Amino acid sequence: MTNEAQWHYENFEPTGSSIGYRITRKLDEVQSPFQKIEIFETTDWGNLMLIDGAIMLTTRDNFLYHEMMSHPALFTHAAPKNVVIIGGGDCGTLREVLKHPGVEEAVQCDIDEQVTRMAEKWFPELCDSNGDARAQLLFDDGIAYMANRPAGSVDLIIVDSTDPVGPAEGLFNKAFYDSCFRALREDGILVQQSESPLMLLKLIQEMRTEMGKAGFTTFKTLPFPQPCYPTGWWSCTLARKAGGFDFRQADAQGKGFATKYYNAGIHHGALSTPAFVAQALGE
Amino acid sequence: MTNEAQWHYENFEPTGSSIGYRITRKLDEVQSPFQKIEIFETTDWGNLMLIDGAIMLTTRDNFLYHEMMSHPALFTHAAPKNVVIIGGGDCGTLREVLKHPGVEEAVQCDIDEQVTRMAEKWFPELCDSNGDARAQLLFDDGIAYMANRPAGSVDLIIVDSTDPVGPAEGLFNKAFYDSCFRALREDGILVQQSESPLMLLKLIQEMRTEMGKAGFTTFKTLPFPQPCYPTGWWSCTLARKAGGFDFRQADAQGKGFATKYYNAGIHHGALSTPAFVAQALGE
Repeated sequence: MTNEAQWHYENFEPTGSSIGYRITRKLDEVQSPFQKIEIFETTDWGNLMLIDGAIMLTTRDNFLYHEMMSHPALFTHAAPKNVVIIGGGDCGTLREVLKHPGVEEAVQCDIDEQVTRMAEKWFPELCDSNGDARAQLLFDDGIAYMANRPAGSVDLIIVDSTDPVGPAEGLFNKAFYDSCFRALREDGILVQQSESPLMLLKLIQEMRTEMGKAGFTTFKTLPFPQPCYPTGWWSCTLARKAGGFDFRQADAQGKGFATKYYNAGIHHGALSTPAFVAQALGE
Repeated sequence: MTNEAQWHYENFEPTGSSIGYRITRKLDEVQSPFQKIEIFETTDWGNLMLIDGAIMLTTRDNFLYHEMMSHPALFTHAAPKNVVIIGGGDCGTLREVLKHPGVEEAVQCDIDEQVTRMAEKWFPELCDSNGDARAQLLFDDGIAYMANRPAGSVDLIIVDSTDPVGPAEGLFNKAFYDSCFRALREDGILVQQSESPLMLLKLIQEMRTEMGKAGFTTFKTLPFPQPCYPTGWWSCTLARKAGGFDFRQADAQGKGFATKYYNAGIHHGALSTPAFVAQALGE
């Protein structure tokens, strides 16, 4: 800690709580056509990315989110080959997806190229797999991409977006989910970040309602720790046209690639919905 | 949220991160012989207790900590009858312990009576079981209590204290653990809050080293979400004289009492140590 150290706080109005970091300096800033991206250096969390003032990721704890947005869904699908990531411009989810040797195609479609350029510069470890022959990085509108994607051509859609305000708002409604439903094969899975299981269950309910209108019939919300997001506890929600969320446990146990957080036991624990969450979601 | 709403931040120096709440007013304050206790009203988290400026608990999220400090250890021991809680003055851990019908004695020994008085006033739901015939509330030095407790008279010791600075410092060293070791039966369990698994693994290592000097041979650290503590991710560490940490899974599944977070699957998940934690702890 230097004498110049100061604290950056993000007050999150919907939860009435705040997360902050001790920062040493601003490393970079760019105003893209869509949003303002800032990079700070912290004393203990590596680099920190803000988008329009909201904390997006830190070097120290992003592995939790990226692993939980990808591996539970990938080990739930019997044999995922075609994967689409909507958003995910920092490339961390893409890196995790490509750890699965069975994946043949991984498209990342983020509207804002500047997010990826900033990640390459300040979070290069997340971009390790960008050169993988199976990866396609598109900088385009994810809503349009899904609308144009051939029917029945995708096994897994990962919606790795910011909160449902601003550019990401259109990723949380029936029209978008209709496109996802059409693009997915019958045994396909849609997974989306679904905010705090402690405070924002109403949002998860609304997501599920909109997904239901598009035809999805089964849902599962998996909580996981995520220190840099409001309340420090986050979740992803999986949706399917039909079928449950039992996973390929033996494959997860013998996964043959490294993760820092995810393992089969943690996956099992994340499927064991706490009573207060089950009650709020009417499960 | 009223116009008078303001934010209270706790900057936690060891992790370089901060947690804050939107508060509406101060409800109470007392300077005990040991520490300053303050109660605030928040907009979204119910009441908030600070001790010497450090966030201790909120109405909204304390169930996570209290359930995880008690049920995993209680369902790991074959038949816990005699339980001692060192610290725990808010009575939330005591309430959870007494949900187990097999428990015959639950002693809570907190040095500061004012913590309990403030809990009775501002967190009355945590004190629901204080009148249980099996409960004894002592306001005394936990170090002395454990030193004087008859040898082999305890099945489970729960160290539910503040951080290892100030009054609680003596609860993290060999001398205290020697007393715990002596007081526990051969199949007894010691469980202690062990800080953030993301940032404070060095402290967990030091705890285990001191416990080991006292004769404990097996250890297990269970992570759990705890939004109001630094990094929003916390842990408890279990120690035994010998033996492992398999738990009475069928009993946990059919527990016959309500919990908001704890269940058998979550217990299983908490035992599935993430790779980065296992590596840091040399497991």
